[in-house]
Amino acid sequence: MSEPLRIGLLGRGTVGGAFEALVAQQADSVAAVTGRRPEISGVLTRSVGDFDEIMANSDVIVELMGGLDPAKGMLERALIEGKHVISANKQLISRHGEELWALAGDNGVQLRFEAAVAGVVPVIRVLGGSLSGARIERIHGIVNGTTNFILSEMARTGADYETVLAEAQRLGYAEADPTEDVAGHDAAAKIAILTRLAFGTSVDVDSIPCEGIERIQPDDIAYASELGLSLKLIATTERVGDGISVRVHPVFLYPGHPLASIGGAFNAVTIESDDITEITLSGPGAGGPQTASAVLGDLVAIASGAVTEISPATDPLPIVTDTESAFYLHLEVEDRPGVLSQVAAVLGDHGISVRSVVQRGLGENARLVMVSHRVSDASFSAALTQLSGLESLRAEPRAIRVIEEDFGS
Amino acid sequence: MSEPLRIGLLGRGTVGGAFEALVAQQADSVAAVTGRRPEISGVLTRSVGDFDEIMANSDVIVELMGGLDPAKGMLERALIEGKHVISANKQLISRHGEELWALAGDNGVQLRFEAAVAGVVPVIRVLGGSLSGARIERIHGIVNGTTNFILSEMARTGADYETVLAEAQRLGYAEADPTEDVAGHDAAAKIAILTRLAFGTSVDVDSIPCEGIERIQPDDIAYASELGLSLKLIATTERVGDGISVRVHPVFLYPGHPLASIGGAFNAVTIESDDITEITLSGPGAGGPQTASAVLGDLVAIASGAVTEISPATDPLPIVTDTESAFYLHLEVEDRPGVLSQVAAVLGDHGISVRSVVQRGLGENARLVMVSHRVSDASFSAALTQLSGLESLRAEPRAIRVIEEDFGS
Repeated sequence: MSEPLRIGLLGRGTVGGAFEALVAQQADSVAAVTGRRPEISGVLTRSVGDFDEIMANSDVIVELMGGLDPAKGMLERALIEGKHVISANKQLISRHGEELWALAGDNGVQLRFEAAVAGVVPVIRVLGGSLSGARIERIHGIVNGTTNFILSEMARTGADYETVLAEAQRLGYAEADPTEDVAGHDAAAKIAILTRLAFGTSVDVDSIPCEGIERIQPDDIAYASELGLSLKLIATTERVGDGISVRVHPVFLYPGHPLASIGGAFNAVTIESDDITEITLSGPGAGGPQTASAVLGDLVAIASGAVTEISPATDPLPIVTDTESAFYLHLEVEDRPGVLSQVAAVLGDHGISVRSVVQRGLGENARLVMVSHRVSDASFSAALTQLSGLESLRAEPRAIRVIEEDFGS
Repeated sequence: MSEPLRIGLLGRGTVGGAFEALVAQQADSVAAVTGRRPEISGVLTRSVGDFDEIMANSDVIVELMGGLDPAKGMLERALIEGKHVISANKQLISRHGEELWALAGDNGVQLRFEAAVAGVVPVIRVLGGSLSGARIERIHGIVNGTTNFILSEMARTGADYETVLAEAQRLGYAEADPTEDVAGHDAAAKIAILTRLAFGTSVDVDSIPCEGIERIQPDDIAYASELGLSLKLIATTERVGDGISVRVHPVFLYPGHPLASIGGAFNAVTIESDDITEITLSGPGAGGPQTASAVLGDLVAIASGAVTEISPATDPLPIVTDTESAFYLHLEVEDRPGVLSQVAAVLGDHGISVRSVVQRGLGENARLVMVSHRVSDASFSAALTQLSGLESLRAEPRAIRVIEEDFGS
């Protein structure tokens, strides 16, 4: 007869409901592996349950409510009163992780949060475990399934952003108000958490530069695909000199990149280090049963007595904002002699060398689509301003970063 | 001042040397994370070192010698005398894992072996951790870098097997005697270990059906690529009814499969389960520093006091040998009326329906390349025998399994 592991469940939405079902279904096998049989001892939702009562009857608190309040206060109290905590709440962990990890450490309990980043993809466990001894150089992640679904569908169908967003909303892949996802804020919270685990340094989520997918045009995707490129919303954190750069933006990838083949609502994370070259983890980034499975993995770890401590953050590493990238550049120009050389001169003046160009007639205008070699953001941005001022330009230039084949950023 | 964690290192080849360097380089960061500072307290090679002395001065034994003897006896003694053990020895773990895990359990020490399967790809940790509560349905793995390198190069250059093998040997990707790798035995040992972790059942390595890559022809790869297929040596373990099927063979993959884009000497493993849909882990499968990094991950786990127990094996699950696959079939036939219908009749008689065909003239002969829908191995094999007997056949038929787009086997 194995000792029960009593779970107080906060929140019973899609993930909470799936977790409840999964615990019932897997209780025997968890008991066999860990010696403790999980059971839901209480549930709190907006309409039912009492937090004090749940606290009195639980060994572990599983928080699947989301949001900062009242989740934060409840989890603080749970940790202080010696309960292990599992949370899938990326907002809470990215903004208040330090306080919560400190509370967990002080009270000798575990705070686990695998499901807060990339659903069932075990990136938290791998960073905190297998790689905790490695010096990590860079992480690129597709950590938002909604935007990856939208970009994949735009590429597949040729439809525009608004049409595909509406379809994603109809299918339940996007919220009624999609801002959090499509503007990159959700990805920013997740890359902040990964930054903390990879580099030991705390990052202010609100300071992470975010560029969303709202202004992506179908013809950008189509033209780039002629150059072999596919478009993803990528969250990046990397060492740059003695500092780090953390950012979220749409990026074109060459076909050899391990994230290039990740389609639909999947998530994937590539971790680069001199020691390991790189490893890539991929899988469903969302979905009730999938996310519930990540929560169950945390529960098994707690039931097994595994201890993963998050050391206190180091002094903040300096944030480097002027990083280098290759760029895709889309220009609509007047179709007359001399225009290409004008554009080339501006690029040359800013030290930007061009790797490939596609030019196409378009009535009286022409489209110039080019991919540059690596250049600093500042130089590229200055070139872009100057290009916008050219008389022969027929529309605002459009630029999107490109990760080159050597897999640098 | 952190307490040292003394490591006795058995074997100092490529991986052992890289591990020694990595420990020196990462000792401070491991001490910061775990509170214990790793140091190599003794090394045993064929020419230097004394096992008794190493035992007397170590807390952890790291075995990177390979082979069964003397590794097995040494590790048994280490476990009995209360040392934690880390081993990268797939042969030893796949053949004698049960005895070694039992010894570890009896003596309250850890036996870790992340590096024994797929190098730095953290599949052991994920199966034993994140997924230990999930009901796994199937694992497909590219777990041998040598064969993946050879098949990638054959596809890239169009060269034949012998030429590419020689190149792989020159580059150090293949051994002077490549049999262990190219015949699939290395992959069989690894999939036996994954089977044990995924399904809790022990499999006799020597009973795993293995088909190698030695007979793959460049034109098989070229023709299949016209059908969108890429060729990998895949190790599979899966539930089939109440039993399991474990096997290693070359397989064509459709482009959407998560293993289709894994090229060169990389390894990757896809774990499927109803709960999680699927997750895929990929990275370098070999290489001194990479494998050493996986060993260091195990060391960090031990230094952190993490405990992962492998429960005793269940009663062996019945091995199912007659599984179902789709097949690629390559026939060289006389180019005259009636031959295609003859072939089609044989296939039809065995319940084999054809999904796509490419036919091409070849002087007096014709090549028929087709991909079937799923059919049982027994039916397909019977059809193949009958096809071989056809008078119009000009060469032995060649058949290779195909994993269909629904990702079933």
